[in-house]
Amino acid sequence: MIKRIAPEADVIDITHGIAPQAVLQGALVLANTLPYMPVGIHVAVVDPGVGGRRRPLAVRGEDGRVYVGPDNGLLLVAADKLGGVEAAVELANDTFRLEPVSMTFHGRDIFSPVAAHLAAGTGFDELGPSVAVDELTRLEIPRAEVGERRLRAIVLYIDRFGNVQLNASVEDLEAVGIVPGTEVEVEAGFDAFYAVTARTFDDVRRGDVVLYEDAYRNVALAVNGGSAADMFSARPNRELRIRRRET
Amino acid sequence: MIKRIAPEADVIDITHGIAPQAVLQGALVLANTLPYMPVGIHVAVVDPGVGGRRRPLAVRGEDGRVYVGPDNGLLLVAADKLGGVEAAVELANDTFRLEPVSMTFHGRDIFSPVAAHLAAGTGFDELGPSVAVDELTRLEIPRAEVGERRLRAIVLYIDRFGNVQLNASVEDLEAVGIVPGTEVEVEAGFDAFYAVTARTFDDVRRGDVVLYEDAYRNVALAVNGGSAADMFSARPNRELRIRRRET
Amino acid sequence: MIKRIAPEADVIDITHGIAPQAVLQGALVLANTLPYMPVGIHVAVVDPGVGGRRRPLAVRGEDGRVYVGPDNGLLLVAADKLGGVEAAVELANDTFRLEPVSMTFHGRDIFSPVAAHLAAGTGFDELGPSVAVDELTRLEIPRAEVGERRLRAIVLYIDRFGNVQLNASVEDLEAVGIVPGTEVEVEAGFDAFYAVTARTFDDVRRGDVVLYEDAYRNVALAVNGGSAADMFSARPNRELRIRRRET
Repeated sequence: MIKRIAPEADVIDITHGIAPQAVLQGALVLANTLPYMPVGIHVAVVDPGVGGRRRPLAVRGEDGRVYVGPDNGLLLVAADKLGGVEAAVELANDTFRLEPVSMTFHGRDIFSPVAAHLAAGTGFDELGPSVAVDELTRLEIPRAEVGERRLRAIVLYIDRFGNVQLNASVEDLEAVGIVPGTEVEVEAGFDAFYAVTARTFDDVRRGDVVLYEDAYRNVALAVNGGSAADMFSARPNRELRIRRRET
Repeated sequence: MIKRIAPEADVIDITHGIAPQAVLQGALVLANTLPYMPVGIHVAVVDPGVGGRRRPLAVRGEDGRVYVGPDNGLLLVAADKLGGVEAAVELANDTFRLEPVSMTFHGRDIFSPVAAHLAAGTGFDELGPSVAVDELTRLEIPRAEVGERRLRAIVLYIDRFGNVQLNASVEDLEAVGIVPGTEVEVEAGFDAFYAVTARTFDDVRRGDVVLYEDAYRNVALAVNGGSAADMFSARPNRELRIRRRET
Repeated sequence: MIKRIAPEADVIDITHGIAPQAVLQGALVLANTLPYMPVGIHVAVVDPGVGGRRRPLAVRGEDGRVYVGPDNGLLLVAADKLGGVEAAVELANDTFRLEPVSMTFHGRDIFSPVAAHLAAGTGFDELGPSVAVDELTRLEIPRAEVGERRLRAIVLYIDRFGNVQLNASVEDLEAVGIVPGTEVEVEAGFDAFYAVTARTFDDVRRGDVVLYEDAYRNVALAVNGGSAADMFSARPNRELRIRRRET
């Protein structure tokens, strides 16, 4: 659809691997990835409410990026992280849609055509009426709970290596006294696993469970040469607890 | 291969996800997708007969699209749907192949090079001798059977959400008295499941089985927030029966 | 990352499907594929030692190709096959990195930016100090063992059809008296399976086990219409034995 409307546009796929209906996961992957992407028009579609009353949106960020997708919070984690939202419009102008619009595939019929028209020169304000920025749907990103010796976190995302990204930062770890080299236990349900904190996989032995800061500055768990997701039966939103061992 | 011969060509991947040897599935995905793609040179390869006697083909449609692939029916569902076939040639001219041609990978050695040469300006008629249009292999697309209160359909395709596309149209449903809002039963083998007909997922509750017209105008089954393919143990070619409930 | 630095570069993905940490598999896929790709700057990252002492490299081949990736042997199978290595440098110049470099994702922070700078005109010698070609890490590619009537091979790679590529050539088969038409047994662990040798799948019946030369000139096993990988419980590095049957 994009190439039909904007043949000169350069289309870069970030991923087609978001789990169905996983809006928060999609929002986090978008926010993690965009800082490394050229400024452009970013289409994102994880859209359980397609065909219903949720608004189709275009959002312009303070840094010049434009986001196109559903008003379910998917776009806003990235936009807020990258300097904030400057303006938003509802995609009400049917000039820029593929008619007739299907009830179940707005990625093809609304979001991609609108993005292509923007790439081909259509003005942001032509897309439809302005929406107040504070009326946009925003997701609540769960925060880790910091105790005296224990961090209570949830799984945000699992990558294709089985590495498990948590909703925690290195600062959260430090608040419970965990720094590189600290021995910890990871509690998943009733199971507990010994783990080491390290800066890189090269510091640990094959099979070790490693707690580290990943390339997006989130705390993550890996098994060197294996799958932490399998070991911890991890899936998005499951709770894991990181406990500093007495020494 | 394409970029070696036609560096300026814009290559768009539709999918690499067709099941091995699933010619009918490939043909239907191609026919579903091409109406949304720019007119171009369309290479499709699902090719169980590779290395045998099936002919390698290029087909020109009435709308200017050119199709390149094996003569096993893969290309013709799309070409027939999009206005019909204007001409066909057998890819006999070895100037446009990668020599030596392997016995098992004509996508690389014949079809992609031919498509690239076409993109770079080679004339359609230079590719090889003309083939009569009525001699081309065509697939039989199974039709749904319409009874008094029951539709007997088969599964054409399962998408990555687990939605199950059937060989039935909204007109077929209407012929058995099923319209949006009608309560139905879906029979799969000896099991029967209650389902609702709806225009969009937003109209139904989480977990509901939904019968709807999908974005390609086929009747499809979904489970809101789940996988219809799992629920019905659906796979391509399996029979499903849709029965209107007495009211 | 590449498009930020070199917006005009044409980026072609070979695969994102190499198993985690499978350096030999990645090296073989690269060596199999590159002969069919345009000469260019080839980034490859299978990098279990990321963040450790393994060097980040750029390698220039005698045929003008440039390879960018870790010094763990990944790049050299292809470079050696395609005419040999002309020069190598360590990627020590931090001008061409994304700072701060993460400990776990050098594909994003070092290898892709370096490749993009090369595409945009940076000279090979600006990347860092020269490395002697005979100091580069090389993988040992296991060789098939040829007996009187039996070939002992290992699995190199399994493709998405379940076809099993072996570390053997047609010449190895001929050395044990196996030519197209010979009946053989394939021994996997304690199981033995009857198989036929053929030039193309079209020569054999559905369900037959076929021993053939694949499109990359390796000996491979397939099941016509099925998965040889499933039948033989094959995985990379597992041994399989091919035995010529008495006639």
